[in-house]
Amino acid sequence: MKSISSRDNPLVKQLHGLANNPRDRRKAGATLLDGAHLIAAARVASWPLTQIVVSDSGYAREEIRRLLEDIGDSVALVRMSDVVFAHISPVDSPSGVLAVADLPPQPSLPANSGSMIVLDGVQDPGNLGAILRTAAAADIGDALLTPGCAQAWSPRTLRAGMGAHFLIRIHEQADPALVLAGYPGQILATGLETGARSLYELDLRGPVAWLFGAEGQGLSKAVKALASGLVIIPMAEGLESLNVGAAAAICLFEQRRQIHAA
Amino acid sequence: MKSISSRDNPLVKQLHGLANNPRDRRKAGATLLDGAHLIAAARVASWPLTQIVVSDSGYAREEIRRLLEDIGDSVALVRMSDVVFAHISPVDSPSGVLAVADLPPQPSLPANSGSMIVLDGVQDPGNLGAILRTAAAADIGDALLTPGCAQAWSPRTLRAGMGAHFLIRIHEQADPALVLAGYPGQILATGLETGARSLYELDLRGPVAWLFGAEGQGLSKAVKALASGLVIIPMAEGLESLNVGAAAAICLFEQRRQIHAA
Repeated sequence: MKSISSRDNPLVKQLHGLANNPRDRRKAGATLLDGAHLIAAARVASWPLTQIVVSDSGYAREEIRRLLEDIGDSVALVRMSDVVFAHISPVDSPSGVLAVADLPPQPSLPANSGSMIVLDGVQDPGNLGAILRTAAAADIGDALLTPGCAQAWSPRTLRAGMGAHFLIRIHEQADPALVLAGYPGQILATGLETGARSLYELDLRGPVAWLFGAEGQGLSKAVKALASGLVIIPMAEGLESLNVGAAAAICLFEQRRQIHAA
Repeated sequence: MKSISSRDNPLVKQLHGLANNPRDRRKAGATLLDGAHLIAAARVASWPLTQIVVSDSGYAREEIRRLLEDIGDSVALVRMSDVVFAHISPVDSPSGVLAVADLPPQPSLPANSGSMIVLDGVQDPGNLGAILRTAAAADIGDALLTPGCAQAWSPRTLRAGMGAHFLIRIHEQADPALVLAGYPGQILATGLETGARSLYELDLRGPVAWLFGAEGQGLSKAVKALASGLVIIPMAEGLESLNVGAAAAICLFEQRRQIHAA
């Protein structure tokens, strides 16, 4: 197979747009999956891949060769020189293999009975992906993202999610007030205000909608007003808060611990 | 107070070096603290500040004005134009105030009796700072960093730590084998190997040395070999692991929960 070694190749231009430009992704209804792990996770979830791109040095790597053998002729494959591959790669250290994948249709609104997370204005793609990964690992079914959040399906968020995107239903541009109207479980936000209760005093075995805000600002007033209760994660003196990824991990896994201990 | 508006000013050059160059920081034995929150935390911890730098727009902000009033004449203060301040700022969105602070002396080795974290090759400054923040919040006394870790006292790690650096003893360039020889508590690593036990089945009320590895690679063989036990964080099917920051948060706060429930 001949390698593409020119940046002027139309496919290279198209891939560069998908990697770097949210508008290109929306227009094409597609995104880039970076790395063998993420591509394998997409295949397990029967996600439609339309193109595989491998770099010359990626082609020499055992893990990528195994992935390509596994995919066989079912998806179009092109090879690129390392220089051109680095040009289209959405990350600083190119993994050696990329896939073009269709963006999923927006899932229907949650049935309102299971646990979910509501992420309000989480702008950093790495943070957003990591929280989706934690939530999927904690068996949370739905993630609601307000319009202020980073794009869930950008290559950087996908990479930080490490396959979580294929396990949790992601609702972008969501209106939490609409979705949470009539929610039958607890709606919990972290906060230090009077009336907040320790995470470990709460009964978390039923459904919970967890509200997490942006690093720095925290929750917007409108979203915080939806909370039916406030939670404190008890911590050592001298620190006021945790980063949002750590706080989410502690809350969601305390819920999972209680459910499985029950 | 007149603003410095030239990049050729010697102080500007010196600060730019402290912001961007690890060698400059080592040579000067100093680092930069970025933002009012971090500077206030340093003052609470009686950390020696040698210079405050405020930008023109920072000078107009209430939180920064209060900080400057509180500091008074005890530390030299200079003002800079927003353009020059952005040039020396170690972060993308300049906070408006910086302090030069002495690097602390390396603390003496842990007394070997309390809980600690061992971070092996955690290269991302944001991840490293966030884990130090989580550990300080969980009341962990000591953090051992292997030579492969990012610099603990770089402006980016400090910023992600949000004051944790002043609450936890940080041992850089540490040799975990040396420090953990004769450690009286459990030495725990996360892992999926046979014999690994669920986090929630373990008695974590005594001292624990927690071993956490780099994103991707995980622990080096040499450090993993120090573990006296392996821990699984039980999670939903389909995902193999959590990111290191989330895993640390779940483990350290489960330990804290058990200690305080006791």
